Amino acid sequence: MLVKGKQMRSLWFEKNCLKIIDQRKLPPHFEIFEAKNEKEVAYAIREMVVRGAPAIGCAAAYGIAMAENAKKAAGLLKKSRPTAHDLFYAIDYVIKKIENGEDALMVAEEYTDKIVEKCRRIGEHGKKIIKKNAKVLTHCNAGALATVDYGTALAPIRMAKDKKIFVWVDETRPRLQGLLTSWELENEGIEHAVIVDNSAGYLMEKGEVDMVIVGADRIAKNYDVVNKIGTYEKAVVAYENDIPFYVAVPESTFDKKAKNGKEIKIEERNREEVTSIYSYKPKNVRNPAFDITPSKYITGIITENGIIYP
Amino acid sequence: MLVKGKQMRSLWFEKNCLKIIDQRKLPPHFEIFEAKNEKEVAYAIREMVVRGAPAIGCAAAYGIAMAENAKKAAGLLKKSRPTAHDLFYAIDYVIKKIENGEDALMVAEEYTDKIVEKCRRIGEHGKKIIKKNAKVLTHCNAGALATVDYGTALAPIRMAKDKKIFVWVDETRPRLQGLLTSWELENEGIEHAVIVDNSAGYLMEKGEVDMVIVGADRIAKNYDVVNKIGTYEKAVVAYENDIPFYVAVPESTFDKKAKNGKEIKIEERNREEVTSIYSYKPKNVRNPAFDITPSKYITGIITENGIIYP
Repeated sequence: MLVKGKQMRSLWFEKNCLKIIDQRKLPPHFEIFEAKNEKEVAYAIREMVVRGAPAIGCAAAYGIAMAENAKKAAGLLKKSRPTAHDLFYAIDYVIKKIENGEDALMVAEEYTDKIVEKCRRIGEHGKKIIKKNAKVLTHCNAGALATVDYGTALAPIRMAKDKKIFVWVDETRPRLQGLLTSWELENEGIEHAVIVDNSAGYLMEKGEVDMVIVGADRIAKNYDVVNKIGTYEKAVVAYENDIPFYVAVPESTFDKKAKNGKEIKIEERNREEVTSIYSYKPKNVRNPAFDITPSKYITGIITENGIIYP
Repeated sequence: MLVKGKQMRSLWFEKNCLKIIDQRKLPPHFEIFEAKNEKEVAYAIREMVVRGAPAIGCAAAYGIAMAENAKKAAGLLKKSRPTAHDLFYAIDYVIKKIENGEDALMVAEEYTDKIVEKCRRIGEHGKKIIKKNAKVLTHCNAGALATVDYGTALAPIRMAKDKKIFVWVDETRPRLQGLLTSWELENEGIEHAVIVDNSAGYLMEKGEVDMVIVGADRIAKNYDVVNKIGTYEKAVVAYENDIPFYVAVPESTFDKKAKNGKEIKIEERNREEVTSIYSYKPKNVRNPAFDITPSKYITGIITENGIIYP
């Protein structure tokens, strides 16, 4: 991804520590968080210094590589967040390779390079379905920040830049990850506007949205999609307005054990994420972090190996 | 409505000025704004010191009563906000009575008393359709603050308190009017939880919402409903989940000139309403304040004269 004209990744290993663009500070503050061991990586995942399913998978892989006891580290890191499938996939992948005698750090580097290459291929496949002058809506941040580079939902958008597209960016309460998306698009020079989540339906109804592309944290065997809270509403309203709704993910997002979305645990996060912008603090607040979009609302799933039509 | 155990209205005329509970400060700050003439009333409407279609209608009525030139005041006040039908209805009502020789202040008082009585009757009709232990979702604030007393959507909820209901309160970005609703419900001792707007669909899908009740700013002849941005999304998702979706309004909300929602002007407000909570300011922001919910998604419209089934 471009940051002020310079190519970089959202996390990388350097001088015995994992360097992570701190997504709690960004935007506007560009700061690098340094994790020196598996505990600091677990903290970074839990507190959302690093977020986005593919990126937290890579962070966890490096976390294991930095640990004295890989198996203990795996247990700790698996507890850092409950919903993203990539986290568990990455940890199991690294542990298996280590048990086969491979070097942990080499495995983590290789895993991360693979994620980046998968995202690049998602972009190649996805750009084909974006029409010239298309207005594309996205929710949350499924960009390079969330995936080390390129993004999942943002990879096709990056690669379709020359088609003169326009992007509607949901702000994505409560954590406003839409601002991360806006920051990435600004760095890439892609035209876009930020809207409150409530506006997405209105713009769809008015014919100002040609397609929706989002990422996902986990996809069940029947193609039910678990993604950032609010995704389900956008998918239902897109469906009602005959707007194609695409999900872009590496295949590691598929949970081969979950028959459908109902079997997937949804993380409820703390109330402060919601109330931090309130000067009045209501007694009772609920904060589910993800929702489940049934496969009937999904036009296609863009992966590194092509597009799946559920 | 109850404020710390004391019965009061959200606006009233006293000592030659219109006193308004300042909804920019509330909650947590309970302050009274004083408008001494029609210009100060127009300011209060435009800046949302007073908001909610029926309440701004009443404020405008008092504004005319305080003006030296009623017709000029009517023109000024009609420009203060473009979407709420009650505003135009109230102004035309007062002007007509004045032209018939009635006292302007008496007319404004009478108009306001009528609004309050209509809301009480909306509550009486509406409470019948709320089941025991029902979980009711509402969007924005259609409470006593928005209607001088009782509310529209909140009137049935207030009167169904003994049915042990629970209310889901959408925070309602960008202006967070959900906090006004939470403050009103807290004062009335009604159980509720505040959620981000993105969570409403998830809760509907999970079966945690039994019905939705919202207010409206304007209703077209074909029963298309114009209300706070986000209403349309909630209505579509409720429809998909077979959840009854009710709109509660005084009949003055019906615009007998607009054939359908598309003929109604939607106010776009300033970008600062959206970006005031951002530390990063995106270059491009869109902020439509209302959306249009086609009548097919609406189960019933609760008015002072009973329930209309479109």
